[in-house]
Amino acid sequence: MSSFYDRYSTERRRKGSVLCVGLDPDPARLPEGYDRGDIIPAIRSFLADVIRATGELAVAYKPNLAFFEVLGPRGMELFADVLEEVRSLAPEALIIADAKRGDVGHTAERYAKTFFETYQCDAVTLRPYMGMDTIDPFLAYRERAAIVLCHTSNAGAPEFQESGEPPLYLRMAAAVATRNEETGNLWMVVGATRDPASIRRIRDEAPDVPLLVPGVGAQGGDLEGVLEAAGQDVLIYAGRAILYAAPERDGVARAAAAEAERLVRVMRTYLS
Amino acid sequence: MSSFYDRYSTERRRKGSVLCVGLDPDPARLPEGYDRGDIIPAIRSFLADVIRATGELAVAYKPNLAFFEVLGPRGMELFADVLEEVRSLAPEALIIADAKRGDVGHTAERYAKTFFETYQCDAVTLRPYMGMDTIDPFLAYRERAAIVLCHTSNAGAPEFQESGEPPLYLRMAAAVATRNEETGNLWMVVGATRDPASIRRIRDEAPDVPLLVPGVGAQGGDLEGVLEAAGQDVLIYAGRAILYAAPERDGVARAAAAEAERLVRVMRTYLS
Repeated sequence: MSSFYDRYSTERRRKGSVLCVGLDPDPARLPEGYDRGDIIPAIRSFLADVIRATGELAVAYKPNLAFFEVLGPRGMELFADVLEEVRSLAPEALIIADAKRGDVGHTAERYAKTFFETYQCDAVTLRPYMGMDTIDPFLAYRERAAIVLCHTSNAGAPEFQESGEPPLYLRMAAAVATRNEETGNLWMVVGATRDPASIRRIRDEAPDVPLLVPGVGAQGGDLEGVLEAAGQDVLIYAGRAILYAAPERDGVARAAAAEAERLVRVMRTYLS
Repeated sequence: MSSFYDRYSTERRRKGSVLCVGLDPDPARLPEGYDRGDIIPAIRSFLADVIRATGELAVAYKPNLAFFEVLGPRGMELFADVLEEVRSLAPEALIIADAKRGDVGHTAERYAKTFFETYQCDAVTLRPYMGMDTIDPFLAYRERAAIVLCHTSNAGAPEFQESGEPPLYLRMAAAVATRNEETGNLWMVVGATRDPASIRRIRDEAPDVPLLVPGVGAQGGDLEGVLEAAGQDVLIYAGRAILYAAPERDGVARAAAAEAERLVRVMRTYLS
Protein backbone atom coordinates (compact mmCIF):
# COMPACT_ATOMS: atom_id res chain seq x y z
CA MET A 1 0.00 0.00 0.00
CA SER A 2 1.38 3.44 -0.93
CA SER A 3 1.51 6.16 1.68
CA PHE A 4 -1.25 8.72 1.98
CA TYR A 5 1.03 11.44 0.65
CA ASP A 6 2.14 9.39 -2.37
CA ARG A 7 -1.44 8.57 -3.26
CA TYR A 8 -2.38 12.21 -2.80
CA SER A 9 0.34 13.52 -5.09
CA THR A 10 -0.39 10.92 -7.77
CA GLU A 11 -4.04 11.94 -7.78
CA ARG A 12 -3.22 15.65 -7.71
CA ARG A 13 -1.16 15.20 -10.86
CA ARG A 14 -3.63 12.90 -12.59
CA LYS A 15 -6.72 14.99 -11.86
CA GLY A 16 -5.07 18.42 -11.90
CA SER A 17 -6.90 19.16 -8.70
CA VAL A 18 -6.50 19.65 -4.96
CA LEU A 19 -10.22 19.41 -4.32
CA CYS A 20 -11.58 17.64 -1.26
CA VAL A 21 -15.36 17.24 -1.18
CA GLY A 22 -16.89 17.49 2.28
CA LEU A 23 -19.77 15.09 2.97
CA ASP A 24 -21.91 16.67 5.70
CA PRO A 25 -25.39 15.31 5.00
CA ASP A 26 -28.06 17.41 6.71
CA PRO A 27 -31.51 15.77 6.46
CA ALA A 28 -33.14 19.21 6.55
CA ARG A 29 -31.25 20.25 3.40
CA LEU A 30 -31.75 17.06 1.40
CA PRO A 31 -32.80 18.14 -2.11
CA GLU A 32 -36.38 17.44 -3.16
CA GLY A 33 -37.00 14.15 -4.92
CA TYR A 34 -35.20 11.75 -2.58
CA ASP A 35 -37.55 9.53 -0.57
CA ARG A 36 -37.71 11.16 2.86
CA GLY A 37 -39.83 8.30 4.19
CA ASP A 38 -36.62 6.52 5.16
CA ILE A 39 -33.90 9.10 5.56
CA ILE A 40 -30.91 6.73 5.75
CA PRO A 41 -31.15 5.24 2.22
CA ALA A 42 -32.22 8.67 0.91
CA ILE A 43 -28.98 10.23 2.18
CA ARG A 44 -27.00 7.32 0.77
CA SER A 45 -28.52 7.86 -2.70
CA PHE A 46 -27.93 11.58 -2.47
CA LEU A 47 -24.27 11.24 -1.49
CA ALA A 48 -23.74 8.57 -4.16
CA ASP A 49 -25.04 11.04 -6.76
CA VAL A 50 -22.60 13.68 -5.52
CA ILE A 51 -19.65 11.25 -5.42
CA ARG A 52 -20.41 9.92 -8.93
CA ALA A 53 -20.61 13.47 -10.30
CA THR A 54 -17.36 14.66 -8.72
CA GLY A 55 -15.21 11.50 -8.78
CA GLU A 56 -13.02 12.64 -11.66
CA LEU A 57 -12.20 15.97 -9.98
CA ALA A 58 -12.04 15.15 -6.28
CA VAL A 59 -8.72 13.99 -4.86
CA ALA A 60 -10.37 13.27 -1.50
CA TYR A 61 -13.73 12.95 0.22
CA LYS A 62 -14.19 14.08 3.78
CA PRO A 63 -17.26 12.69 5.58
CA ASN A 64 -17.97 14.64 8.78
CA LEU A 65 -18.66 12.10 11.52
CA ALA A 66 -21.04 14.35 13.47
CA PHE A 67 -23.58 14.20 10.64
CA PHE A 68 -23.54 10.40 10.71
CA GLU A 69 -23.36 9.88 14.48
CA VAL A 70 -26.42 12.03 15.08
CA LEU A 71 -28.46 9.41 13.19
CA GLY A 72 -27.65 6.75 15.78
CA PRO A 73 -26.29 3.24 15.10
CA ARG A 74 -27.87 3.24 11.64
CA GLY A 75 -25.96 6.44 10.94
CA MET A 76 -22.73 4.52 11.41
CA GLU A 77 -23.96 1.87 8.96
CA LEU A 78 -24.63 4.74 6.57
CA PHE A 79 -21.08 6.00 7.19
CA ALA A 80 -19.67 2.56 6.28
CA ASP A 81 -21.92 2.41 3.21
CA VAL A 82 -20.83 5.88 2.05
CA LEU A 83 -17.18 4.81 2.33
CA GLU A 84 -18.07 1.85 0.09
CA GLU A 85 -19.68 4.23 -2.39
CA VAL A 86 -16.46 6.28 -2.56
CA ARG A 87 -14.35 3.14 -3.03
CA SER A 88 -16.60 1.95 -5.82
CA LEU A 89 -17.46 5.23 -7.60
CA ALA A 90 -14.15 7.09 -7.13
CA PRO A 91 -11.69 4.25 -6.44
CA GLU A 92 -8.49 6.31 -6.32
CA ALA A 93 -9.87 9.07 -4.12
CA LEU A 94 -8.64 9.34 -0.54
CA ILE A 95 -11.03 9.11 2.39
CA ILE A 96 -10.56 11.51 5.29
CA ALA A 97 -12.67 10.83 8.38
CA ASP A 98 -13.43 14.29 9.74
CA ALA A 99 -13.74 13.16 13.34
CA LYS A 100 -11.60 15.69 15.26
CA ARG A 101 -10.81 13.08 17.87
CA GLY A 102 -8.12 13.53 20.48
CA ASP A 103 -7.59 11.64 23.69
CA VAL A 104 -4.84 10.04 25.72
CA GLY A 105 -3.27 6.58 25.88
CA HIS A 106 -5.55 3.59 25.47
CA THR A 107 -8.44 5.71 24.24
CA ALA A 108 -6.35 7.26 21.46
CA GLU A 109 -5.32 3.74 20.40
CA ARG A 110 -9.01 2.76 20.14
CA TYR A 111 -9.82 5.78 18.02
CA ALA A 112 -6.90 5.02 15.69
CA LYS A 113 -8.16 1.46 15.36
CA THR A 114 -11.72 2.71 14.77
CA PHE A 115 -10.83 4.86 11.78
CA PHE A 116 -7.88 2.95 10.31
CA GLU A 117 -9.03 -0.65 10.88
CA THR A 118 -12.77 -0.84 11.59
CA TYR A 119 -13.65 1.71 8.88
CA GLN A 120 -10.42 1.58 6.81
CA CYS A 121 -10.18 5.34 6.25
CA ASP A 122 -7.00 6.82 4.79
CA ALA A 123 -6.73 9.75 7.20
CA VAL A 124 -8.46 11.20 10.24
CA THR A 125 -8.67 14.74 11.62
CA LEU A 126 -7.39 15.12 15.19
CA ARG A 127 -6.98 17.70 17.92
CA PRO A 128 -3.47 17.86 19.38
CA TYR A 129 -3.91 20.36 22.24
CA MET A 130 -3.57 17.64 24.88
CA GLY A 131 0.00 17.11 23.65
CA MET A 132 1.68 15.62 20.59
CA ASP A 133 1.94 12.28 22.43
CA THR A 134 -1.83 11.91 21.95
CA ILE A 135 -1.23 11.76 18.16
CA ASP A 136 1.37 8.97 18.28
CA PRO A 137 -1.09 6.03 18.13
CA PHE A 138 -2.34 7.42 14.81
CA LEU A 139 1.14 8.10 13.41
CA ALA A 140 2.01 4.45 14.01
CA TYR A 141 -0.11 3.66 10.93
CA ARG A 142 2.57 4.89 8.58
CA GLU A 143 0.58 4.48 5.35
CA ARG A 144 -2.28 6.59 6.75
CA ALA A 145 -2.27 10.28 7.69
CA ALA A 146 -3.01 12.19 10.88
CA ILE A 147 -4.45 15.61 10.06
CA VAL A 148 -4.21 17.80 13.14
CA LEU A 149 -6.16 20.99 13.78
CA CYS A 150 -3.75 23.85 14.01
CA HIS A 151 -5.87 26.97 13.63
CA THR A 152 -9.60 27.48 13.16
CA SER A 153 -11.75 30.34 11.88
CA ASN A 154 -14.50 30.45 14.51
CA ALA A 155 -15.13 33.69 16.39
CA GLY A 156 -13.80 32.22 19.64
CA ALA A 157 -10.52 30.94 18.16
CA PRO A 158 -8.34 33.81 19.46
CA GLU A 159 -9.23 33.04 23.11
CA PHE A 160 -6.83 30.09 23.45
CA GLN A 161 -5.34 29.29 20.03
CA GLU A 162 -3.81 32.72 19.57
CA SER A 163 -2.72 33.24 23.17
CA GLY A 164 0.93 33.67 24.10
CA GLU A 165 3.91 34.99 22.19
CA PRO A 166 4.50 33.42 19.74
CA PRO A 167 0.81 32.45 19.61
CA LEU A 168 -0.03 28.88 20.55
CA TYR A 169 -1.08 27.84 17.03
CA LEU A 170 2.35 28.74 15.66
CA ARG A 171 4.10 26.84 18.45
CA MET A 172 1.89 23.90 17.56
CA ALA A 173 2.76 24.23 13.86
CA ALA A 174 6.44 24.10 14.78
CA ALA A 175 5.89 21.00 16.95
CA VAL A 176 4.00 19.30 14.13
CA ALA A 177 6.78 20.12 11.65
CA THR A 178 9.39 18.61 13.97
CA ARG A 179 7.38 15.44 14.53
CA ASN A 180 6.65 15.13 10.81
CA GLU A 181 10.36 15.03 10.00
CA GLU A 182 10.41 11.59 11.63
CA THR A 183 7.05 10.20 10.55
CA GLY A 184 6.14 11.94 7.28
CA ASN A 185 2.43 11.32 7.74
CA LEU A 186 1.20 14.50 9.41
CA TRP A 187 -1.00 17.15 7.84
CA MET A 188 -2.53 20.26 9.42
CA VAL A 189 -5.99 21.82 9.20
CA VAL A 190 -5.86 25.59 8.86
CA GLY A 191 -9.04 27.66 8.76
CA ALA A 192 -8.57 30.60 6.45
CA THR A 193 -11.76 32.62 6.33
CA ARG A 194 -11.24 34.89 9.36
CA ASP A 195 -7.49 35.48 9.02
CA PRO A 196 -6.11 34.51 5.57
CA ALA A 197 -2.61 35.69 6.51
CA SER A 198 -2.38 32.95 9.13
CA ILE A 199 -1.68 30.41 6.38
CA ARG A 200 1.52 32.24 5.46
CA ARG A 201 2.63 32.42 9.10
CA ILE A 202 1.97 28.69 9.50
CA ARG A 203 3.88 27.98 6.27
CA ASP A 204 6.89 29.85 7.75
CA GLU A 205 6.85 27.54 10.79
CA ALA A 206 6.06 24.34 8.91
CA PRO A 207 7.07 24.68 5.25
CA ASP A 208 6.84 20.94 4.51
CA VAL A 209 3.64 19.88 6.29
CA PRO A 210 0.75 19.59 3.80
CA LEU A 211 -2.36 21.59 4.64
CA LEU A 212 -6.08 20.83 4.58
CA VAL A 213 -7.87 24.15 4.23
CA PRO A 214 -11.62 24.37 4.88
CA GLY A 215 -14.10 27.11 4.36
CA VAL A 216 -13.58 27.86 0.71
CA GLY A 217 -16.40 27.44 -1.73
CA ALA A 218 -19.68 28.71 -0.34
CA GLN A 219 -18.42 32.22 -0.95
CA GLY A 220 -15.54 31.21 -3.20
CA GLY A 221 -13.86 34.51 -2.59
CA ASP A 222 -10.46 33.60 -1.25
CA LEU A 223 -9.60 30.43 -3.14
CA GLU A 224 -6.82 32.23 -5.00
CA GLY A 225 -5.43 33.67 -1.79
CA VAL A 226 -5.34 30.26 -0.15
CA LEU A 227 -3.61 28.64 -3.13
CA GLU A 228 -1.02 31.39 -3.25
CA ALA A 229 -0.21 31.21 0.47
CA ALA A 230 -0.41 27.45 0.98
CA GLY A 231 1.62 26.24 -1.98
CA GLN A 232 1.24 22.94 -3.86
CA ASP A 233 0.92 20.54 -0.92
CA VAL A 234 -2.63 21.34 -0.04
CA LEU A 235 -6.15 19.97 -0.10
CA ILE A 236 -8.92 22.52 -0.25
CA TYR A 237 -12.34 21.45 0.76
CA ALA A 238 -15.76 22.55 -0.28
CA GLY A 239 -18.76 21.04 1.40
CA ARG A 240 -22.12 22.73 1.23
CA ALA A 241 -21.28 24.65 -1.96
CA ILE A 242 -21.06 21.34 -3.84
CA LEU A 243 -23.57 19.27 -1.84
CA TYR A 244 -26.41 21.76 -1.89
CA ALA A 245 -25.83 23.35 -5.28
CA ALA A 246 -29.22 22.16 -6.56
CA PRO A 247 -32.61 22.18 -4.82
CA GLU A 248 -33.90 19.04 -6.62
CA ARG A 249 -32.63 15.53 -7.18
CA ASP A 250 -32.66 15.90 -10.97
CA GLY A 251 -30.19 18.76 -10.77
CA VAL A 252 -27.85 17.42 -8.06
CA ALA A 253 -25.29 15.65 -10.27
CA ARG A 254 -25.04 18.45 -12.82
CA ALA A 255 -24.81 21.24 -10.22
CA ALA A 256 -22.26 19.39 -8.06
CA ALA A 257 -20.08 18.69 -11.11
CA ALA A 258 -20.35 22.31 -12.26
CA GLU A 259 -19.31 23.71 -8.87
CA ALA A 260 -16.42 21.22 -8.63
CA GLU A 261 -15.29 22.19 -12.15
CA ARG A 262 -15.45 25.88 -11.29
CA LEU A 263 -13.19 25.34 -8.26
CA VAL A 264 -10.77 23.01 -10.06
CA ARG A 265 -10.42 25.51 -12.94
CA VAL A 266 -9.09 28.07 -10.46
CA MET A 267 -6.85 25.44 -8.80
CA ARG A 268 -5.26 24.53 -12.13
CA THR A 269 -3.93 28.04 -12.67
CA TYR A 270 -1.85 27.51 -9.51
CA LEU A 271 -0.81 23.87 -9.85
CA SER A 272 2.42 23.16 -11.68
CA MET B 1 -36.60 17.36 34.40
CA SER B 2 -34.16 18.47 37.11
CA SER B 3 -30.79 19.86 36.14
CA PHE B 4 -27.73 17.66 36.00
CA TYR B 5 -26.28 19.36 39.06
CA ASP B 6 -29.47 18.95 41.12
CA ARG B 7 -29.69 15.28 40.23
CA TYR B 8 -26.00 14.87 41.05
CA SER B 9 -26.29 16.47 44.48
CA THR B 10 -29.42 14.50 45.35
CA GLU B 11 -27.64 11.26 44.49
CA ARG B 12 -24.46 12.29 46.29
CA ARG B 13 -26.47 12.80 49.45
CA ARG B 14 -28.60 9.69 49.04
CA LYS B 15 -25.71 7.35 48.22
CA GLY B 16 -23.02 9.06 50.30
CA SER B 17 -20.77 8.80 47.27
CA VAL B 18 -19.10 10.78 44.50
CA LEU B 19 -18.19 7.65 42.55
CA CYS B 20 -18.38 7.60 38.77
CA VAL B 21 -17.83 4.17 37.18
CA GLY B 22 -16.00 4.29 33.86
CA LEU B 23 -17.25 1.80 31.26
CA ASP B 24 -14.34 1.12 28.88
CA PRO B 25 -14.98 -2.42 27.66
CA ASP B 26 -11.85 -3.97 26.17
CA PRO B 27 -12.60 -7.31 24.46
CA ALA B 28 -9.07 -8.50 25.26
CA ARG B 29 -9.70 -8.04 28.98
CA LEU B 30 -13.18 -9.55 29.13
CA PRO B 31 -13.20 -11.92 32.16
CA GLU B 32 -13.38 -15.64 31.44
CA GLY B 33 -16.83 -17.17 31.29
CA TYR B 34 -18.60 -14.72 28.99
CA ASP B 35 -19.34 -16.17 25.54
CA ARG B 36 -16.60 -14.75 23.33
CA GLY B 37 -18.22 -16.26 20.25
CA ASP B 38 -20.25 -13.10 19.82
CA ILE B 39 -18.40 -10.32 21.54
CA ILE B 40 -21.17 -7.68 21.46
CA PRO B 41 -23.71 -9.50 23.67
CA ALA B 42 -20.84 -10.77 25.82
CA ILE B 43 -19.75 -7.20 26.58
CA ARG B 44 -23.34 -6.21 27.25
CA SER B 45 -23.73 -9.01 29.83
CA PHE B 46 -20.40 -8.12 31.40
CA LEU B 47 -21.24 -4.41 31.75
CA ALA B 48 -24.74 -5.24 33.04
CA ASP B 49 -23.12 -7.36 35.77
CA VAL B 50 -20.87 -4.43 36.74
CA ILE B 51 -23.73 -1.91 36.68
CA ARG B 52 -25.99 -4.16 38.77
CA ALA B 53 -23.22 -4.67 41.33
CA THR B 54 -22.36 -0.98 41.69
CA GLY B 55 -25.74 0.71 41.15
CA GLU B 56 -26.28 1.57 44.82
CA LEU B 57 -22.85 3.23 45.11
CA ALA B 58 -22.30 4.89 41.75
CA VAL B 59 -23.62 8.41 41.26
CA ALA B 60 -22.71 8.29 37.57
CA TYR B 61 -21.59 5.93 34.79
CA LYS B 62 -19.20 7.12 32.13
CA PRO B 63 -19.05 4.99 28.96
CA ASN B 64 -16.00 5.85 26.86
CA LEU B 65 -17.14 6.20 23.25
CA ALA B 66 -13.85 5.02 21.73
CA PHE B 67 -14.40 1.52 23.11
CA PHE B 68 -17.83 1.31 21.48
CA GLU B 69 -16.99 3.04 18.18
CA VAL B 70 -14.11 0.68 17.49
CA LEU B 71 -16.67 -2.16 17.25
CA GLY B 72 -18.35 -0.50 14.25
CA PRO B 73 -22.08 0.21 13.83
CA ARG B 74 -22.96 -2.71 16.15
CA GLY B 75 -20.74 -1.05 18.74
CA MET B 76 -23.08 1.94 18.71
CA GLU B 77 -26.06 -0.39 19.18
CA LEU B 78 -24.15 -1.79 22.14
CA PHE B 79 -23.63 1.75 23.44
CA ALA B 80 -27.39 2.42 23.24
CA ASP B 81 -28.10 -0.94 24.94
CA VAL B 82 -25.65 -0.19 27.75
CA LEU B 83 -27.37 3.14 28.38
CA GLU B 84 -30.64 1.19 28.68
CA GLU B 85 -28.98 -1.15 31.17
CA VAL B 86 -27.96 1.83 33.33
CA ARG B 87 -31.46 3.33 33.15
CA SER B 88 -33.00 0.04 34.17
CA LEU B 89 -30.46 -1.28 36.72
CA ALA B 90 -29.40 2.05 38.30
CA PRO B 91 -32.30 4.36 37.40
CA GLU B 92 -31.16 7.44 39.30
CA ALA B 93 -27.54 7.34 38.15
CA LEU B 94 -26.32 9.98 35.72
CA ILE B 95 -24.92 9.04 32.34
CA ILE B 96 -21.82 10.86 31.10
CA ALA B 97 -20.84 10.20 27.48
CA ASP B 98 -17.04 10.33 27.53
CA ALA B 99 -16.69 11.48 23.94
CA LYS B 100 -14.24 14.41 24.18
CA ARG B 101 -15.86 16.05 21.19
CA GLY B 102 -15.17 19.61 20.16
CA ASP B 103 -15.85 21.30 16.86
CA VAL B 104 -17.23 24.55 15.48
CA GLY B 105 -20.67 25.78 14.46
CA HIS B 106 -22.98 23.33 12.72
CA THR B 107 -20.80 20.35 13.61
CA ALA B 108 -20.90 21.19 17.33
CA GLU B 109 -24.69 21.41 17.09
CA ARG B 110 -24.80 17.90 15.58
CA TYR B 111 -22.63 16.48 18.33
CA ALA B 112 -24.84 18.10 20.99
CA LYS B 113 -27.88 16.57 19.31
CA THR B 114 -26.11 13.19 19.07
CA PHE B 115 -25.45 12.87 22.78
CA PHE B 116 -28.39 14.79 24.26
CA GLU B 117 -31.17 13.73 21.86
CA THR B 118 -30.20 10.64 19.86
CA TYR B 119 -28.66 8.87 22.87
CA GLN B 120 -30.26 10.92 25.70
CA CYS B 121 -27.13 11.16 27.82
CA ASP B 122 -27.07 13.52 30.79
CA ALA B 123 -23.63 14.99 30.13
CA VAL B 124 -20.82 14.82 27.58
CA THR B 125 -17.09 15.46 27.85
CA LEU B 126 -15.79 18.15 25.50
CA ARG B 127 -12.57 19.85 24.46
CA PRO B 128 -12.73 23.64 24.55
CA TYR B 129 -9.35 24.63 23.06
CA MET B 130 -10.93 25.87 19.83
CA GLY B 131 -12.69 28.53 21.92
CA MET B 132 -15.53 28.65 24.44
CA ASP B 133 -17.96 29.42 21.59
CA THR B 134 -17.58 25.79 20.48
CA ILE B 135 -19.19 24.74 23.79
CA ASP B 136 -22.30 26.93 23.44
CA PRO B 137 -24.43 24.45 21.45
CA PHE B 138 -24.04 22.01 24.35
CA LEU B 139 -24.75 24.61 27.04
CA ALA B 140 -28.05 25.38 25.32
CA TYR B 141 -29.37 22.12 26.79
CA ARG B 142 -29.72 23.66 30.25
CA GLU B 143 -30.78 20.45 32.05
CA ARG B 144 -27.70 18.61 30.76
CA ALA B 145 -24.03 19.28 31.52
CA ALA B 146 -21.00 20.07 29.40
CA ILE B 147 -17.86 18.67 31.02
CA VAL B 148 -14.83 20.34 29.46
CA LEU B 149 -11.26 19.06 29.57
CA CYS B 150 -9.16 21.55 31.47
CA HIS B 151 -5.98 19.68 32.34
CA THR B 152 -4.81 16.14 31.61
CA SER B 153 -2.19 13.86 33.12
CA ASN B 154 -0.50 12.48 29.99
CA ALA B 155 3.26 12.94 29.59
CA GLY B 156 2.77 15.42 26.71
CA ALA B 157 0.33 17.66 28.57
CA PRO B 158 2.85 20.39 29.50
CA GLU B 159 3.66 21.05 25.81
CA PHE B 160 0.55 23.17 25.13
CA GLN B 161 -1.74 23.02 28.18
CA GLU B 162 0.84 24.44 30.57
CA SER B 163 2.35 26.97 28.17
CA GLY B 164 2.20 30.70 28.87
CA GLU B 165 2.03 32.66 32.09
CA PRO B 166 -0.41 32.06 33.66
CA PRO B 167 -0.47 28.60 32.05
CA LEU B 168 -3.16 28.00 29.47
CA TYR B 169 -5.12 25.50 31.59
CA LEU B 170 -5.58 28.08 34.34
CA ARG B 171 -6.74 30.71 31.85
CA MET B 172 -9.19 28.13 30.55
CA ALA B 173 -10.40 27.37 34.08
CA ALA B 174 -11.07 31.09 34.57
CA ALA B 175 -12.97 31.29 31.25
CA VAL B 176 -15.07 28.27 32.20
CA ALA B 177 -15.86 29.80 35.60
CA THR B 178 -17.02 33.03 33.98
CA ARG B 179 -19.21 31.24 31.45
CA ASN B 180 -20.64 28.99 34.17
CA GLU B 181 -21.90 31.99 36.12
CA GLU B 182 -24.42 32.48 33.30
CA THR B 183 -25.29 28.90 32.43
CA GLY B 184 -24.67 26.82 35.57
CA ASN B 185 -24.19 23.60 33.61
CA LEU B 186 -20.42 23.42 33.12
CA TRP B 187 -18.07 20.95 34.76
CA MET B 188 -14.33 20.45 34.21
CA VAL B 189 -12.19 17.34 33.82
CA VAL B 190 -8.93 17.58 35.73
CA GLY B 191 -6.36 14.80 35.56
CA ALA B 192 -4.62 14.46 38.88
CA THR B 193 -2.09 11.65 38.70
CA ARG B 194 0.89 13.57 37.33
CA ASP B 195 0.43 16.85 39.19
CA PRO B 196 -1.98 16.56 42.15
CA ALA B 197 -1.42 20.20 43.12
CA SER B 198 -3.02 21.36 39.86
CA ILE B 199 -6.46 20.63 41.35
CA ARG B 200 -5.89 23.25 44.01
CA ARG B 201 -4.68 25.82 41.45
CA ILE B 202 -7.76 25.14 39.30
CA ARG B 203 -10.00 25.46 42.38
CA ASP B 204 -8.50 28.91 43.00
CA GLU B 205 -9.49 30.01 39.48
CA ALA B 206 -12.85 28.29 39.42
CA PRO B 207 -14.09 27.68 42.97
CA ASP B 208 -17.69 26.91 41.93
CA VAL B 209 -17.26 24.68 38.86
CA PRO B 210 -17.72 21.00 39.78
CA LEU B 211 -14.88 18.67 38.81
CA LEU B 212 -14.71 15.25 37.21
CA VAL B 213 -11.41 13.70 38.27
CA PRO B 214 -10.11 10.60 36.51
CA GLY B 215 -7.21 8.33 37.21
CA VAL B 216 -7.98 7.32 40.76
CA GLY B 217 -8.57 3.71 41.68
CA ALA B 218 -6.15 1.41 39.90
CA GLN B 219 -3.49 2.54 42.36
CA GLY B 220 -5.89 4.15 44.81
CA GLY B 221 -3.11 6.13 46.37
CA ASP B 222 -4.22 9.72 45.92
CA LEU B 223 -7.96 9.46 46.44
CA GLU B 224 -7.65 11.31 49.76
CA GLY B 225 -5.53 14.05 48.19
CA VAL B 226 -8.05 14.58 45.41
CA LEU B 227 -10.99 14.77 47.82
CA GLU B 228 -9.17 17.25 50.01
CA ALA B 229 -8.19 19.54 47.13
CA ALA B 230 -11.36 19.32 45.03
CA GLY B 231 -13.99 19.84 47.71
CA GLN B 232 -17.55 18.48 47.76
CA ASP B 233 -18.59 19.24 44.18
CA VAL B 234 -16.72 16.46 42.50
CA LEU B 235 -17.15 13.15 40.73
CA ILE B 236 -14.23 10.76 40.94
CA TYR B 237 -14.04 8.01 38.43
CA ALA B 238 -12.60 4.57 38.56
CA GLY B 239 -12.66 2.45 35.44
CA ARG B 240 -10.39 -0.54 35.11
CA ALA B 241 -10.00 -0.98 38.88
CA ILE B 242 -13.71 -1.81 39.12
CA LEU B 243 -14.27 -3.39 35.69
CA TYR B 244 -11.38 -5.80 35.76
CA ALA B 245 -11.28 -6.58 39.47
CA ALA B 246 -12.01 -10.28 38.82
CA PRO B 247 -10.57 -12.60 36.16
CA GLU B 248 -13.75 -14.73 35.87
CA ARG B 249 -17.43 -14.08 35.33
CA ASP B 250 -18.42 -15.67 38.63
CA GLY B 251 -16.34 -13.14 40.54
CA VAL B 252 -17.17 -9.99 38.55
CA ALA B 253 -20.14 -8.72 40.56
CA ARG B 254 -18.58 -9.38 43.95
CA ALA B 255 -15.19 -7.89 43.04
CA ALA B 256 -16.71 -4.80 41.38
CA ALA B 257 -18.93 -4.15 44.40
CA ALA B 258 -16.01 -4.64 46.79
CA GLU B 259 -13.79 -2.19 44.92
CA ALA B 260 -16.63 0.36 44.71
CA GLU B 261 -17.27 -0.04 48.44
CA ARG B 262 -13.61 0.45 49.23
CA LEU B 263 -13.55 3.73 47.29
CA VAL B 264 -16.85 4.98 48.67
CA ARG B 265 -15.72 4.26 52.23
CA VAL B 266 -12.84 6.69 51.73
CA MET B 267 -15.13 9.23 50.04
CA ARG B 268 -17.53 9.20 52.99
CA THR B 269 -14.86 10.41 55.40
CA TYR B 270 -14.69 13.61 53.29
CA LEU B 271 -18.34 14.16 52.41
CA SER B 272 -20.38 16.26 54.80
